[in-house]
Amino acid sequence: MKALVLEEKGRLSLRDFDIPARLGPKDVRIRTHTVGICGSDVHYYTHGKIGHFVVRAPMVLGHEAAGTVIEAGAEVTNLKPGDRVCMEPGIPDPTSRAAKLGIYNVDPAVTFWATPPVHGCLTPEVVHPAAFTYKLPDNVSFAEGAMVEPFAIGMQAALRARIQPGDVAVVTGAGPIGMMVALAALAGGCARVIVADLAQPKLDIIGAYDGIETVNIRNRPLAGAVAEATDNWGADIVFECSGAAPAILSMHQLARPGGAIVLVGMPVDPVPVDIVGLQAKELRVETVFRYANVYDRAIALIASGKVDLKPLISASIPFEDSIAGFDRAVEARETDVKLQIVMPE
Amino acid sequence: MKALVLEEKGRLSLRDFDIPARLGPKDVRIRTHTVGICGSDVHYYTHGKIGHFVVRAPMVLGHEAAGTVIEAGAEVTNLKPGDRVCMEPGIPDPTSRAAKLGIYNVDPAVTFWATPPVHGCLTPEVVHPAAFTYKLPDNVSFAEGAMVEPFAIGMQAALRARIQPGDVAVVTGAGPIGMMVALAALAGGCARVIVADLAQPKLDIIGAYDGIETVNIRNRPLAGAVAEATDNWGADIVFECSGAAPAILSMHQLARPGGAIVLVGMPVDPVPVDIVGLQAKELRVETVFRYANVYDRAIALIASGKVDLKPLISASIPFEDSIAGFDRAVEARETDVKLQIVMPE
Amino acid sequence: MKALVLEEKGRLSLRDFDIPARLGPKDVRIRTHTVGICGSDVHYYTHGKIGHFVVRAPMVLGHEAAGTVIEAGAEVTNLKPGDRVCMEPGIPDPTSRAAKLGIYNVDPAVTFWATPPVHGCLTPEVVHPAAFTYKLPDNVSFAEGAMVEPFAIGMQAALRARIQPGDVAVVTGAGPIGMMVALAALAGGCARVIVADLAQPKLDIIGAYDGIETVNIRNRPLAGAVAEATDNWGADIVFECSGAAPAILSMHQLARPGGAIVLVGMPVDPVPVDIVGLQAKELRVETVFRYANVYDRAIALIASGKVDLKPLISASIPFEDSIAGFDRAVEARETDVKLQIVMPE
Amino acid sequence: MKALVLEEKGRLSLRDFDIPARLGPKDVRIRTHTVGICGSDVHYYTHGKIGHFVVRAPMVLGHEAAGTVIEAGAEVTNLKPGDRVCMEPGIPDPTSRAAKLGIYNVDPAVTFWATPPVHGCLTPEVVHPAAFTYKLPDNVSFAEGAMVEPFAIGMQAALRARIQPGDVAVVTGAGPIGMMVALAALAGGCARVIVADLAQPKLDIIGAYDGIETVNIRNRPLAGAVAEATDNWGADIVFECSGAAPAILSMHQLARPGGAIVLVGMPVDPVPVDIVGLQAKELRVETVFRYANVYDRAIALIASGKVDLKPLISASIPFEDSIAGFDRAVEARETDVKLQIVMPE
Repeated sequence: MKALVLEEKGRLSLRDFDIPARLGPKDVRIRTHTVGICGSDVHYYTHGKIGHFVVRAPMVLGHEAAGTVIEAGAEVTNLKPGDRVCMEPGIPDPTSRAAKLGIYNVDPAVTFWATPPVHGCLTPEVVHPAAFTYKLPDNVSFAEGAMVEPFAIGMQAALRARIQPGDVAVVTGAGPIGMMVALAALAGGCARVIVADLAQPKLDIIGAYDGIETVNIRNRPLAGAVAEATDNWGADIVFECSGAAPAILSMHQLARPGGAIVLVGMPVDPVPVDIVGLQAKELRVETVFRYANVYDRAIALIASGKVDLKPLISASIPFEDSIAGFDRAVEARETDVKLQIVMPE
Repeated sequence: MKALVLEEKGRLSLRDFDIPARLGPKDVRIRTHTVGICGSDVHYYTHGKIGHFVVRAPMVLGHEAAGTVIEAGAEVTNLKPGDRVCMEPGIPDPTSRAAKLGIYNVDPAVTFWATPPVHGCLTPEVVHPAAFTYKLPDNVSFAEGAMVEPFAIGMQAALRARIQPGDVAVVTGAGPIGMMVALAALAGGCARVIVADLAQPKLDIIGAYDGIETVNIRNRPLAGAVAEATDNWGADIVFECSGAAPAILSMHQLARPGGAIVLVGMPVDPVPVDIVGLQAKELRVETVFRYANVYDRAIALIASGKVDLKPLISASIPFEDSIAGFDRAVEARETDVKLQIVMPE
Repeated sequence: MKALVLEEKGRLSLRDFDIPARLGPKDVRIRTHTVGICGSDVHYYTHGKIGHFVVRAPMVLGHEAAGTVIEAGAEVTNLKPGDRVCMEPGIPDPTSRAAKLGIYNVDPAVTFWATPPVHGCLTPEVVHPAAFTYKLPDNVSFAEGAMVEPFAIGMQAALRARIQPGDVAVVTGAGPIGMMVALAALAGGCARVIVADLAQPKLDIIGAYDGIETVNIRNRPLAGAVAEATDNWGADIVFECSGAAPAILSMHQLARPGGAIVLVGMPVDPVPVDIVGLQAKELRVETVFRYANVYDRAIALIASGKVDLKPLISASIPFEDSIAGFDRAVEARETDVKLQIVMPE
Repeated sequence: MKALVLEEKGRLSLRDFDIPARLGPKDVRIRTHTVGICGSDVHYYTHGKIGHFVVRAPMVLGHEAAGTVIEAGAEVTNLKPGDRVCMEPGIPDPTSRAAKLGIYNVDPAVTFWATPPVHGCLTPEVVHPAAFTYKLPDNVSFAEGAMVEPFAIGMQAALRARIQPGDVAVVTGAGPIGMMVALAALAGGCARVIVADLAQPKLDIIGAYDGIETVNIRNRPLAGAVAEATDNWGADIVFECSGAAPAILSMHQLARPGGAIVLVGMPVDPVPVDIVGLQAKELRVETVFRYANVYDRAIALIASGKVDLKPLISASIPFEDSIAGFDRAVEARETDVKLQIVMPE
């Protein structure tokens, strides 16, 4: 079967590749339809590693996927051939201590698509546990289904934030994840979300949504803008999505007394934090690692129309042009949010 | 000053009435503009009491109010004459044990407009603590400002529910409060809200909102409808807003394992509850008593456009026609949600 | 293998009985040492059913067990032969929707020892999933290990209560479960626990613990005692462990404004609840169904000496005298808290 | 009236000093009995400032106090002359936005004893709001009453941690506050608390309590000790009480997946934090600023015998020897935990 293979750092091939895939009794076989390109896929391509995850052998990329069930294991009851689905790419040991607690995302034994040495799903067929495969309602397209994975990170951030209805949130950083977080926060109960970045084209995209205000921090100090927007009280929640040291050092200034900060952005190295600044307002700081138990919630919000991710899909690229698609992603055009690869019929 | 006075059970007058109102250093004087008629006002009119609160002397009615600040006490910093505002009608002892905990709504010492023997605000001027008076943004009308009070109950229900983004909720009972709860739940993060009632006109009004589905339980069993809407899993949250014994007895059937029930409706007498039914799903049951710390959140949601209460205002009645307004409210037309009284300029 | 078999309502035999028990790769085989007699075991014996769980074929009783691992499946890493252990009797489908959320106790597919048609563990050997088998520290005896199961219910109640350090709790009902709840609440952070019952011998047993006060409601109204103990504020948490209708009807009187009630007792039929009474203090009501993720916590509290369950073990009965042991349990002597059956070496 | 006055950095006097103290209707006048010396008092003495709080005029020191009510304002109902009490030193504006939310500790308008320019209580009489004055039960001594203030910080940390019964906690740093946190965590539901420090005398003092284990990090790496104590799972909660940069940089290593870190120690400057390390376990980080709503809880735990603070009182110093007492505190003997000043009869 053909697959998009990262042969080694900097070298992709679209070639036949065999991923052993026995269909267990609780698994489904899925014909993939759409697979989004994630920043992590691109980073493995350009750097050959992320942290201590190093690509040491050819690896199939891709983990943001939707498709159609073509075969179901003997014990599968929730899915049947023909069902349109999207797939959660991280699979825990369901009897591990973390999984028993419901926080299977932090199970140390989790395996995750396109995280070495585990292969991804940029190939026409995959086998996946039915428990981590989610049916798409009729009014949710494959393209939207493949957006559930990145949106799930926004959902996890929104859940960890423990939004209270009517909260005011700030999102620092308007990359694809920052945008997902902003939309999840808004759908998840915030009255207003203020998104800050340096790049105006990104702010224009996310600012087109009702309920989202933008601040270009080249033009205007964010702390002042937030103070003005909140009668000098501060935001209930600050979602730090930039991973940038200056944003992290001053994030406490944006929050109200007793507010919360959610750390979504991932600075490569330790960065200075003003702990006394956090303490003086007794802020709660939450962190996010992937997601758990959010796929059904994410799909429900998309299906109900409360969240519209379609404006964030910048281009659909045929599977045969995958390598060109990745090269476009490496370019990082400021007007691209999400590129998706579509498999041949 | 003129006021709408409940002289005794069944007898209203619009007449001069003196409410002593010294402006303290932390108070504001407000010219009232719009005052909604609440079910409790009507109940005092028709029954002369609610529970152990009995009207024993003439009492001014009204507690859902918006107006304009005309004078501010010496220590008031958050408001000034000319500010358009709405007022939170319950005033606690700010140093009580409950108030120190932030749950001032359950302070036994709270005084509340139009709850005997405390006078309400259906009169052209009132004095109120600045700490419980909230500025209206320019894009929120007085009519909407006077809707903040009933909406605040919906907000309190939504807060107590601890909604998680993407939850599915059921609201049993489509009276004015059930409608407020449904809208607060939707704005507060639910993906879908299913509202159930026997009265089709009410369902038609609330069902006109995006994201709200309705079930007329005359035509269709609610448990089945919820099961179908949730793949037999049940609703994350059930807001019981009917106060009706049959709804309360079967409410556990609507919830998912580990879900929540919020008791908003107030049955006059103790009613049978299926405790083992609640336990078998380990449900959490929250109760609601008025509200605390929600006015700013409610206003933020209205101002941002996430909540539109205007369709629920059925009529605006001039102050001089107040008594006719109350009589219309007694009629309880099925198409009336909220009647408001507007003071003369 | 011999087993204590409930042949039918009212008839026990100690006889050879074959429970098919293949050792799967994630299972352990355990030689049982001590098995407590639970009220549910006794109820199946005397009534032949509990709710809709009906004994329709001979069933082995017992689910409160400790023993020694004698064989471990190929994939088991946390246990090895010779480990002293206790066992969690309810086994969910680990990939079910509830289990993924961490609330595996409310997974509709759970199987539970000695709940028809599933056999219990009153037999010398059992096979059990390693994920639900917990190692006992050296300083925790088998007798204490077999107490973990009933104590786990107390732990679940304490967890659901969300105790805050220094809380004052009331426990209504001093049966074995009420006692477990009282001890879990005390170890779990309460400053004081007031236990109420009609039976003085039970109150004497639980009242012997430091930090536990008792009220015999034959002699003194509980509401008054709680008011006096709390400066008329009320208890932070009320654990309702009696299942008695009068206690349930008046439970709101015991709680402080904004407090919590945990429903542990299981009244057979729906009972009247004063919903307005709950609402007037805006109480939170939690329910308890068995337990999830508490065995390790329970063992830690026993091992650290914070919880001493030994005084609650009223008698150790040899396996060959099991039937006599059950008959003693049916008698329900007021001074018996827990009877345990000990297997032959 | 005599008072211990910090005239300026490095210079104390025991001299007559007039603190204007009108008794308002909601105030009480208290004859102070015992006042503890806090690290902050000592720091103002040695440095003349803490952060941006600078001593610019002579200031009375002391904020950890117990005494006897000698006069009560006209509206005071909870206290009367003769009541033995302890006092909460921070007084918010009770109608501020933070205070209405119940988080009065982060009200920007709070005034706090012995925080410039507000005078402290090292003087024979003080006037204080009754709402922030707490009655001591008969079995709690004045010495213990004066320990409530520092213990309150431990309580706040325990509350923010949201301890679940049976948690395992680690406390890094065994200074007075670390000790208070350890005892609050233990009483607040932890099964075990592991305290780490470099100073063996301090570890010996806190290690003498049942349920507290100690690790001298000169001899043994803490991460290894915690891993061993928790079967390589990690601690449920890490209380960072050292404020030391190396401890902060590695704190995530001590916590279990999904665990919590509570930042109690206050590093003067921003320090590096390993954000990706926190994220990889999806840790929650709480911060602590003084305390709110904990005095009654703290007193209840002391009165019930669950917390014994007496071993931490190293010496009682007569008021006339106050300056020598402060000089002993500056010495910072490793065996001193808390020095208290006792007023003359």
